[in-house]
Amino acid sequence: MRLIGHRIAGPERPGAVLTTVDGEERVLDLGPVTGGLSVAGLLADDAALAAVRQALAGADPASLPLLEQVPLGPPVRPGKILCLGYNYAGHTEEEAPSFPNVFVKTPNTICGPRDDVVMPRAATDVDYEGEIAVVIGRTARDVTEAAAMAHVAGYTLFNDVSDRGWQHRANQWALGKSVDGFGPLGPWIVTADEAGDLAGRRVQTERNGVLTVDSTTDAMVFGVAYLVHYLSQVITLEPGDIISTGTPGRTPRAQAVHTPLAHGDTVTVRVTGLGELRTTFVSMEENR
Amino acid sequence: MRLIGHRIAGPERPGAVLTTVDGEERVLDLGPVTGGLSVAGLLADDAALAAVRQALAGADPASLPLLEQVPLGPPVRPGKILCLGYNYAGHTEEEAPSFPNVFVKTPNTICGPRDDVVMPRAATDVDYEGEIAVVIGRTARDVTEAAAMAHVAGYTLFNDVSDRGWQHRANQWALGKSVDGFGPLGPWIVTADEAGDLAGRRVQTERNGVLTVDSTTDAMVFGVAYLVHYLSQVITLEPGDIISTGTPGRTPRAQAVHTPLAHGDTVTVRVTGLGELRTTFVSMEENR
Repeated sequence: MRLIGHRIAGPERPGAVLTTVDGEERVLDLGPVTGGLSVAGLLADDAALAAVRQALAGADPASLPLLEQVPLGPPVRPGKILCLGYNYAGHTEEEAPSFPNVFVKTPNTICGPRDDVVMPRAATDVDYEGEIAVVIGRTARDVTEAAAMAHVAGYTLFNDVSDRGWQHRANQWALGKSVDGFGPLGPWIVTADEAGDLAGRRVQTERNGVLTVDSTTDAMVFGVAYLVHYLSQVITLEPGDIISTGTPGRTPRAQAVHTPLAHGDTVTVRVTGLGELRTTFVSMEENR
Repeated sequence: MRLIGHRIAGPERPGAVLTTVDGEERVLDLGPVTGGLSVAGLLADDAALAAVRQALAGADPASLPLLEQVPLGPPVRPGKILCLGYNYAGHTEEEAPSFPNVFVKTPNTICGPRDDVVMPRAATDVDYEGEIAVVIGRTARDVTEAAAMAHVAGYTLFNDVSDRGWQHRANQWALGKSVDGFGPLGPWIVTADEAGDLAGRRVQTERNGVLTVDSTTDAMVFGVAYLVHYLSQVITLEPGDIISTGTPGRTPRAQAVHTPLAHGDTVTVRVTGLGELRTTFVSMEENR
């Protein structure tokens, strides 16, 4: 199934996206069947997940509101946002790294799939990275690679927006990575049972309609199960936490013409079977 | 005043430390006067702070439980933990940095002032850094250096525990910094009005009773007001967030004999006027 965070009734709560026989995407509000659970809470709760599946089976999609008319938040509010650098072969000139290169984004970065990214007054050189984010469903502490996938609830898309100027003022990237709202997430979580294996997925990013990243998950250096295992040796992964698996390298043409994102630019992240995340960038100055 | 997070009545809630005429430290449970507020919520709430001051003025310290007998959590549960590297002159051989070098620790690192740090099975080379942590009281977004101090609630002590092996496997330090429980915080928040200016404070760290860091805040490169200003240009600082201001360099003797922390080692962080944070390190293996 595909899970979202929606605001049909005001406060953010879980929903599921259903496709009608006519191919329309409609939303079942899961608030009534999940009590006060957040999406993160739902992912970790077997009984609630069973109730959701039952509600989905009994729902009449045609009677539900259209997804495009439903106000959306991020599909989950992660407690921890762990991100990978250099995790696709060819992203850099260097050889594949020996260990995952992990950095953290703070939770103030997370925004919904239809929210604009507002570039602050202090922004210098805003850039995008379209990535597959793994969503944790079960607490993972020191799990083996073989057992790791049982802790994965599903996948969503993430734009690891960065301010390259702030990122490279010092050797730690945190400030360039943790700018308010620099983390569009969504549009939905495709649960692991529905998503299946990630092998061979096309991973694409467009800037203003021009393809700038066109790769596949086969170029991923450290895979999902390994990453969950590796991280869980030192960090307990909790339901709702995300691991963003890194961006593939850009097309040669895009590499040659890097320019900072400007007011009104749009970036679209697209991965086979996981959907599309389209974000507009606006300048705080222009926005006033 | 000095604020703590205690568990006198079970769930963690705010308290204040009072000193009796006999010099004993005793705890006033602030639960009854702060409703359901956390310490972070209290710091941002003028009415609640006024009620606390009134309760403190009317309290009979002699009738209160002794601090040493009260179960303690961290004095605040920060949403964001922003840490400084190389922020004391002399910490490295290099010249003072042009910009603050900031990294993030995830919230799973935070533990209370009496909690042991448990070194996980995967630990390779665990080390300590005793630091002054700034606690945010008022939301700070793009504030000037001149206005910054109005957003600071107070100060506490932080041990930025690190696994040097994991820290240096890749160029981003996150995994060595974000190990579960690698962030003892406390024992209390000294509010800014009581703490006064940080200038000239002695900053010391002891390992097993031997002084290994002995410096003063005068060696700090980027001061508190500047850091709040600088960070707030890109990250909205929220009540309860902490900015840990970095460790001074070690004494020459301590630099010459670095060895990883071992089961049973204790580390004490001490800063004039802010108290003392003493932590015992235990190996998960030994602990079983």
